[in-house]
Amino acid sequence: MTDQNKIKSIFEDSFKNKTKVITEEIAKGILSEYNISVPRFALVKDVGSTVTEARKLGFPLVAKIVSPQILHKTDVGGVKIDLKDEESVKSAFNDMYDRLSKDYDVKGVLLEKMVPKGVEMIVGLQNDPQFGPVMMVGLGGIFTELFKDVSFRVLPLTKEDAIQMIEELQGKMLLKGYRGSDPIDMEMLTTALLNIGKLGYDISPYYESIDFNPMIVYPDSYFVADAKIILSERPKYDVVSKTEPNSTNIDLFFNAKSVALIGASPEIGKIGNSVLETLVKHDYKGKVYPVNAKGYPEIMGVPAYKSLNDIKDPIDVVVVTVDLKFVPDLLKICGDKSIHNVVIISGGGKELGGERAVIEQQVKELSSQLNIRIIGPNCIGMFNGENRLDCAFQGHERMLRPKNGNVAFLSQSGTIGIAFMEHSFPFGMSKMVSYGNRSDVDEADMIWYLSEDPQTKVIGLYVEGLGDGRKFVNTAKKVISDRNKPIIVFKNGRTTRGAKQAASHTGSLGGTYSVVKGAFSQNGIISVDSYDELTASLKALSWQPVPNGNRVAMVTNGAGPIIAAIDQFERMGLQVANLSEESMKSFKSHYPATYVIGNPCDVTGSANADDYKFAIQTFMDDPNVDIVMPWFVFQDDPLEEKIVDILAEFNKEGKKPILVGALGGPFTQKMANRLEENNVPVYQSVNTWSIAASSLAKWSALSKSQE
Amino acid sequence: MTDQNKIKSIFEDSFKNKTKVITEEIAKGILSEYNISVPRFALVKDVGSTVTEARKLGFPLVAKIVSPQILHKTDVGGVKIDLKDEESVKSAFNDMYDRLSKDYDVKGVLLEKMVPKGVEMIVGLQNDPQFGPVMMVGLGGIFTELFKDVSFRVLPLTKEDAIQMIEELQGKMLLKGYRGSDPIDMEMLTTALLNIGKLGYDISPYYESIDFNPMIVYPDSYFVADAKIILSERPKYDVVSKTEPNSTNIDLFFNAKSVALIGASPEIGKIGNSVLETLVKHDYKGKVYPVNAKGYPEIMGVPAYKSLNDIKDPIDVVVVTVDLKFVPDLLKICGDKSIHNVVIISGGGKELGGERAVIEQQVKELSSQLNIRIIGPNCIGMFNGENRLDCAFQGHERMLRPKNGNVAFLSQSGTIGIAFMEHSFPFGMSKMVSYGNRSDVDEADMIWYLSEDPQTKVIGLYVEGLGDGRKFVNTAKKVISDRNKPIIVFKNGRTTRGAKQAASHTGSLGGTYSVVKGAFSQNGIISVDSYDELTASLKALSWQPVPNGNRVAMVTNGAGPIIAAIDQFERMGLQVANLSEESMKSFKSHYPATYVIGNPCDVTGSANADDYKFAIQTFMDDPNVDIVMPWFVFQDDPLEEKIVDILAEFNKEGKKPILVGALGGPFTQKMANRLEENNVPVYQSVNTWSIAASSLAKWSALSKSQE
Repeated sequence: MTDQNKIKSIFEDSFKNKTKVITEEIAKGILSEYNISVPRFALVKDVGSTVTEARKLGFPLVAKIVSPQILHKTDVGGVKIDLKDEESVKSAFNDMYDRLSKDYDVKGVLLEKMVPKGVEMIVGLQNDPQFGPVMMVGLGGIFTELFKDVSFRVLPLTKEDAIQMIEELQGKMLLKGYRGSDPIDMEMLTTALLNIGKLGYDISPYYESIDFNPMIVYPDSYFVADAKIILSERPKYDVVSKTEPNSTNIDLFFNAKSVALIGASPEIGKIGNSVLETLVKHDYKGKVYPVNAKGYPEIMGVPAYKSLNDIKDPIDVVVVTVDLKFVPDLLKICGDKSIHNVVIISGGGKELGGERAVIEQQVKELSSQLNIRIIGPNCIGMFNGENRLDCAFQGHERMLRPKNGNVAFLSQSGTIGIAFMEHSFPFGMSKMVSYGNRSDVDEADMIWYLSEDPQTKVIGLYVEGLGDGRKFVNTAKKVISDRNKPIIVFKNGRTTRGAKQAASHTGSLGGTYSVVKGAFSQNGIISVDSYDELTASLKALSWQPVPNGNRVAMVTNGAGPIIAAIDQFERMGLQVANLSEESMKSFKSHYPATYVIGNPCDVTGSANADDYKFAIQTFMDDPNVDIVMPWFVFQDDPLEEKIVDILAEFNKEGKKPILVGALGGPFTQKMANRLEENNVPVYQSVNTWSIAASSLAKWSALSKSQE
Repeated sequence: MTDQNKIKSIFEDSFKNKTKVITEEIAKGILSEYNISVPRFALVKDVGSTVTEARKLGFPLVAKIVSPQILHKTDVGGVKIDLKDEESVKSAFNDMYDRLSKDYDVKGVLLEKMVPKGVEMIVGLQNDPQFGPVMMVGLGGIFTELFKDVSFRVLPLTKEDAIQMIEELQGKMLLKGYRGSDPIDMEMLTTALLNIGKLGYDISPYYESIDFNPMIVYPDSYFVADAKIILSERPKYDVVSKTEPNSTNIDLFFNAKSVALIGASPEIGKIGNSVLETLVKHDYKGKVYPVNAKGYPEIMGVPAYKSLNDIKDPIDVVVVTVDLKFVPDLLKICGDKSIHNVVIISGGGKELGGERAVIEQQVKELSSQLNIRIIGPNCIGMFNGENRLDCAFQGHERMLRPKNGNVAFLSQSGTIGIAFMEHSFPFGMSKMVSYGNRSDVDEADMIWYLSEDPQTKVIGLYVEGLGDGRKFVNTAKKVISDRNKPIIVFKNGRTTRGAKQAASHTGSLGGTYSVVKGAFSQNGIISVDSYDELTASLKALSWQPVPNGNRVAMVTNGAGPIIAAIDQFERMGLQVANLSEESMKSFKSHYPATYVIGNPCDVTGSANADDYKFAIQTFMDDPNVDIVMPWFVFQDDPLEEKIVDILAEFNKEGKKPILVGALGGPFTQKMANRLEENNVPVYQSVNTWSIAASSLAKWSALSKSQE
């Protein structure tokens, strides 16, 4: 049992007294409370007790100066190691105490049993701006500093999390009995990590970071040899976000029967003109009310209004394209008229700083006071594949709208949002939100809403920085486990330089990618490395059944691309399936001797559609195969176009996922289009073809673990 | 001066006596001849000399058993370390000598001065099947074994190579004064590496591998503490390939005025039918002579022949689509008729093994006896963009042929070869060869030929395994430095699993990628990681001028993709340019306050074509900018289509390279096509957009280093 009140008061006192350092003997006391093993120690204040305590502890010893004013003890000559006898301990005490007492408030000298050599690890606690308290695990100094071989998780930890953190380390073999040394007891090590994690979670208001460095690990035990606590500037009791996702009224954004457009304009080139055209000239059937202060009687043939106040009919959603400075007053009108949904397309908020950021903050506050849900500012709003409601300012002649489908897409960036609207054209979209500056509705609210949306099967996100990262990953975890919907994310702005650009873009912090990566993996979010990989994965998950595992079988009439794919499989968590004996036998008896049978099965340039059919049928029947990946050189003449019908038939059966790969020009594109008309996904790069399989396999493992 | 004859005779003797091990005292003697520093040692055979020699060497000492029959000394208890006095050395000698003499032919005990702690390195020599002697450098055991942090080069080494090997190590900071330790003298270290490299080159016929492990390094000195020599099975005097590239008669493959097609057929679906159609029904103007043993009077309206012998007109090139077993006789006829060029499209050679491999070997031998150059077998032959000579069996309705251009492409895989023929359609191709099994003409012969081809500006290769890797890199180096033509390679089959597939594909060995990567980098070959990256790089190099450096400037009306690009820049060797003050000033005075000025310059969704023009002109004038990369959201209405003309104009000036990025659907594709009609390269993925810039920058550095 840890005495939390005692620990709490230690920290509260140090904030009160403005001490910047928790001295080592106190830190070690706190660690002991959490059953975190530290070397035996004693705080001594005079030569007499130094000798007595040294005898009790036993040699060799380390002596360290203790002062709340000294953070870097080594720099002031405040550490002496390998003290082998009473004499050397005594002289170490005398030297340090006398010398350092002149300049610092010295509380004494810490004598500590020197720990034997073992495997050196580092464990760190940090208060991350997006996630609150997180924990890092890595191997000794060089591995962490030069090789960045570390693993992060958000606190609190489960035992599974602790195990995964160790498993993610590239150098984990050092812990598992490298070169004949005894392996570390993993039960012991995970318990230690869980104890540190518990401490990190409990005292999260008080620290900025804590380094347990080094933590020396032995087969059956370990010692935290030093714990450097960097306090936060002031206690922050809200670092662990308790915010729950809020899907109240979000549905009305998508199913609005009436939309008022503030800033609707007859002037071509104005955003209010483009959005109006999108709303009234295409497939959306709801009522649209153009509003413009200039008092036009009508715009584009639709009766117009001078002010939102002038509209007597009920309004479901207000879309704003005027300057942000007019928005606070608009929101008050909305409040009066019981309008709960506002989309602010206009930018010019916090990304410009100064008074513009103040306006955005005002908007944010009014949103919560008046119970008005806001999408934006600085966005292109939402799209609903079913009722075709859409407020993008990109005209239809320049931008496709996707058909109705089962993929929902959330994008911080409008650019990526509209690109995906076009790229999802073949498989279709249920709903899209470009949420921009995210004054109110954020990615967590949206995935929570989408988890209950019957139109949506798969959720994709493009993220630059997460606002409340903890709220997002907690919500995602529930969506994945309780509602069984996959969430695939491409997180942009990963490097310092990239993150800097992300910050100037939307005024939000990019965060450190290794933290984000750990948080995603911990919560079952599938993370990909590019927009192309995101699109590829969403297409596969939209159209294909969940496979039983990660074992891939391939057939091809041109081997080059297959070799490149296999090069990537291990990294992507895929396996080349070991075909059953039966499959091999049937290949051998069926195919000519010039075909290279096995997996991959190279049916050579002579292959016709039936050769492919036979291979695919064999893979479908083989219990060792989970995912079927045919590659086609469609340019080769013997391959008849009826291959489209054959694949469509397999696809309709839906027994195992099929992912088609092909490289080429217009004819290949034509074949790809015909296959995709039959919901068979086609990939024109080896990387996206492979990553699609990888995402299917990852989702298979995740949805199985929920069963 | 090294006594090479003495060293040579040591090895020759051990092959003669069938000793499998060069014992340590002999190995250390050889090292000393090459000025490679080893700890002081003495070989002792009795207790008396043990004591005398120990005194001379000084303590502490290491004692190791010496026997040509013992390779792993530790395993048999044949090593004792940290011997601090005469007593312990004596007892170590007695124990090891007595115990091990019973089972092994013991030559004595090696006493060696124990070396102090330092930075642990490993240096390795290997005889690689593709490159002959190569050298590896890495940091101590764990870094090499778990982190694969090593660097390879082909021997002989230059000083620059040695420096580069160290610079490539991720953990190089350990050598440069990590955590306050003294930095290692790089002059001393590179000299050590050069000495080891010289040894490795001189004795290359004799070893399979040599591990200098550990090599302990100090600020001003080093010791090779152990050198384990694994002898080759027999001396191989040809490991260092001296083969020169041979471009004799290659030009005739491309500029043939007459082609005989052996296996020409009227039967649709036969390869001999498809190739004939390619030759006679399209743009090739040379004479074509169909040959078929069935004795057709004509095929496709062209007079046909029963045998090659029956043709009386002169024949420049013979193309073969019949079974490989008929080829040896055909070659004899070619020899009689003084035909020097044969393309063997038919497969079924060494990739099937057994007697088929024997036939291929026969073909190879006849090729050299009769002075007949052979492309193939197992290939799709060659293409010449200028005279449209092409023998691909893929029909025109399924496969585009590129326009005439300046990119030459060499592909081991036919699949990749034809994909590139289609994808190079916009920028055009000079010459293509799919060389398949490479019985005679190989990639080195081809690049040597292409280096003198006035049509060819850039050379791209798709490689699975290199035959004679040394011949290739040596030739490539000359092409790059003497002829100033860039060579870009995608090497497939990098992992063990991928390489295995490559082997079963073309019967060649994939090799280890880290060796290939080192060999490429050493010789100025630009290496990319996928087919898409290869295509992207070739397009940029084909159309764009060589930049002055690697400093990139970007302008965009949608920031998302820019963030993703910057994330990749560091890894790709690109820099975000620091704009001149002048540029910043002119941005500030020109643009509205809502634009985020700088680099990248975010002109927001309101940007029109003139906004882009201003930014690009500013970048063109800024001496701090080398490469100009505008990204476009073409879907945004304010951006007029005249942007095409603006970019075309900049491109025509050719001051700095321009690379355009854009994501989207049909309208974006239309804009991309219009730009590419003006030779402005457009990229529809962030990765290919960035890698194109990276390849330009790499070529800039390489061509500068030649000046």
